[in-house]
Amino acid sequence: MERTLIKDLKNHTGQEVLIEGSVSVRRDQGKMVFFDFRDRSGSVQGVVLPNSGAIEAAKEVRSEFVVSVEGKVNQRPEKNVNANIQNGDIELEIKKIEIISVAEIPFELGSEVNLDTYLDHQPFTLRSEKAKQVFKVQDAIIQGFRDGMRGQDFVEFQAPALVGGDAEGGAAAFTVDYYYDQKAFLATSPQFYKQIMVGVFERAFATPKVFRGEKHSTTRHLSEYSSMDFEMGFIKDHTDVMAVLEKTLRLIIEKVGLPVALPEKIPTLKLREAQKVLGVSQDEPDLEPEHERALCEWALKEHASDFVFVTHYPVSKRPFYTYEDENDPGFTKSFDLLFRGLEITTGGQRIHDHDTLVEKIKGKGLDPEKFKFYLEAFKVGMPPHGGSATGLERLTARLLNLPNVKEATLFPRDLNRIDTLLKTDKAE
Amino acid sequence: MERTLIKDLKNHTGQEVLIEGSVSVRRDQGKMVFFDFRDRSGSVQGVVLPNSGAIEAAKEVRSEFVVSVEGKVNQRPEKNVNANIQNGDIELEIKKIEIISVAEIPFELGSEVNLDTYLDHQPFTLRSEKAKQVFKVQDAIIQGFRDGMRGQDFVEFQAPALVGGDAEGGAAAFTVDYYYDQKAFLATSPQFYKQIMVGVFERAFATPKVFRGEKHSTTRHLSEYSSMDFEMGFIKDHTDVMAVLEKTLRLIIEKVGLPVALPEKIPTLKLREAQKVLGVSQDEPDLEPEHERALCEWALKEHASDFVFVTHYPVSKRPFYTYEDENDPGFTKSFDLLFRGLEITTGGQRIHDHDTLVEKIKGKGLDPEKFKFYLEAFKVGMPPHGGSATGLERLTARLLNLPNVKEATLFPRDLNRIDTLLKTDKAE
Repeated sequence: MERTLIKDLKNHTGQEVLIEGSVSVRRDQGKMVFFDFRDRSGSVQGVVLPNSGAIEAAKEVRSEFVVSVEGKVNQRPEKNVNANIQNGDIELEIKKIEIISVAEIPFELGSEVNLDTYLDHQPFTLRSEKAKQVFKVQDAIIQGFRDGMRGQDFVEFQAPALVGGDAEGGAAAFTVDYYYDQKAFLATSPQFYKQIMVGVFERAFATPKVFRGEKHSTTRHLSEYSSMDFEMGFIKDHTDVMAVLEKTLRLIIEKVGLPVALPEKIPTLKLREAQKVLGVSQDEPDLEPEHERALCEWALKEHASDFVFVTHYPVSKRPFYTYEDENDPGFTKSFDLLFRGLEITTGGQRIHDHDTLVEKIKGKGLDPEKFKFYLEAFKVGMPPHGGSATGLERLTARLLNLPNVKEATLFPRDLNRIDTLLKTDKAE
Repeated sequence: MERTLIKDLKNHTGQEVLIEGSVSVRRDQGKMVFFDFRDRSGSVQGVVLPNSGAIEAAKEVRSEFVVSVEGKVNQRPEKNVNANIQNGDIELEIKKIEIISVAEIPFELGSEVNLDTYLDHQPFTLRSEKAKQVFKVQDAIIQGFRDGMRGQDFVEFQAPALVGGDAEGGAAAFTVDYYYDQKAFLATSPQFYKQIMVGVFERAFATPKVFRGEKHSTTRHLSEYSSMDFEMGFIKDHTDVMAVLEKTLRLIIEKVGLPVALPEKIPTLKLREAQKVLGVSQDEPDLEPEHERALCEWALKEHASDFVFVTHYPVSKRPFYTYEDENDPGFTKSFDLLFRGLEITTGGQRIHDHDTLVEKIKGKGLDPEKFKFYLEAFKVGMPPHGGSATGLERLTARLLNLPNVKEATLFPRDLNRIDTLLKTDKAE
């Protein structure tokens, strides 16, 4: 018999079918055994009646066994219909169960376990309905991002992960043993490459993995994450970038379909204005995490918005390629986007003049010779441009109100863990 | 004035417009100066007439200068219409040119240069129409792959690049300095994770970067490349995987729109049959590059196909997780897909039984304890499954008949190069 997907069972009422899937739940009620089966398309309840030839097999089968099941699709009697679940109006009367794969589970799927246990057992815990929902939302986000980009004339490119230098001069890049005792680095962002691509396609985007070797163990840091990056030419200033980002976010949110407070225009403040709202010193070059949370509470209360843009970070706090605002010296045409208490995006206008860029590199104490490849893009003509980078896992986590970004990461890496805990864990 | 995209100029005939873009070509004809301008949407010819106020600026402007141009869109006289190019029926009569960014180019764009010079100057050379075409095709391929996957019920996931071990026991994984003197590795494939995801979504795909530290300097090897991976559950054998791959490739080829010889069914041979066709020894465990080329010539001649599947590689040549064919002992339910002389895909059915897998790991002299995380997926129940991995750059290169896969890679990395040549280049 051909396999029928569980979502299609309702079209086969009264017929014999074969389904293949996993056992989510098994309820032994003495003479009868009930099962919830699932496959990629959904779930259905099955029942083994006392006189069924499948009763022996049904006694053996346990949660997470992979099975092939033959049975008849019956309409449930009116009183047993559950309109709140998929296939709540039908039931599979099981004639035959074949065990494809046995299973031995560490605990019941969906049990409340602590995060370390959850992560230790991801090949199992990711199978819960809750986890699957998280990563289906993540799939929709990245799809929505790409669709939004293409709809605005952006071309996708593959940004490299291996880079020759720690581009921005920070200390957070992982080093790689490359060939012949040479060191390479893992990209902390696709920044230079997406700027180069502005010269090629004018509008370019990428969704690369980026890597940060920061010694943070927090609810918002990852050593490897997915960055939704774009960069665009011929802008008047950073607000053109913000408009493209905002439009793309609206498309993503529409696609995901979860409730989000998103007014017609995302409230926008300069950093100093935000600091005034928060009652903190305007001498600080950045917002602390608790200030980000407080500012989002303010935005929700005053502007009914889960999002808030903060612009004009000081030159000293931004990378060398950031464009200084000629009308607000010392401050940059840069922005962060905060969402439900967390910074999810950073962006801005970039310097496009070759000689200015060289000066800025020198000003940071860096050697322009090491930026030769990047600088060529500016030597051969570059339009005014800017872009932004949004963290996929952070956006996923805040959209679903997950407290820890690791819950929105399939296989999170941090200073204590790559799949399993690292051996020097105890050194922490 | 608002910017008009070059592709929309034909809707503004007789009107004054402003365009922004780069100078592709400048032809000084004494009293008049002609330009080809381009932006992300296309190209157009502009002319500065002798009496134009723009004539002084026009004398300064050179190739690749970024400019803002005001002018009037004129219909070309019938005799000057060029129907073979975009905007061949119009011309921009330039009133004003503003230089946004000057440019100093190393050689004319599109010049025939050797591959090393081409790669050294990628921020410039990628701007040629030929290079842009390559990476637009690449964009279409990866889009086509994802669309094809989603259309067949696959869910996208983000596969990790940092891994805890050199999974398959090969010597080709790059090592990374992780935290506290620990070593991590760069993934040589998302294999284990996509198998884990079969337990979660039944059908999963990913397009990660993968990394191979092989000391090859050939026309087909890269140290970092994009892998189009999928994995699916509830298969009868490897032929189900081949069918999904074949369907997806058809969608990609349709999307790309380039001529490809693809018959109704891709010819399929066991390795030993291929060896017989080629007249080489059936004791060899694999095909040499020249045999791959010869076999593709045969497939084109005999089956009018640019593709050919080769199946049943010996157990000894395939990774431990490969499924042995019970009807052909010593040989596996595995396949390679060759396209125009080059292996672009490898795939097959995998072992889904936990204990068999443990035995196979031991049989390769590896320690099952190191595979604990991966093995949990099998402990908690796994359906028969399989999948494949297709190299994006190789497919791009062969589709466009580019001799070197590096021409189909935006920023190729190999043992001699990360953007620029590495210093120990001379050691080669």
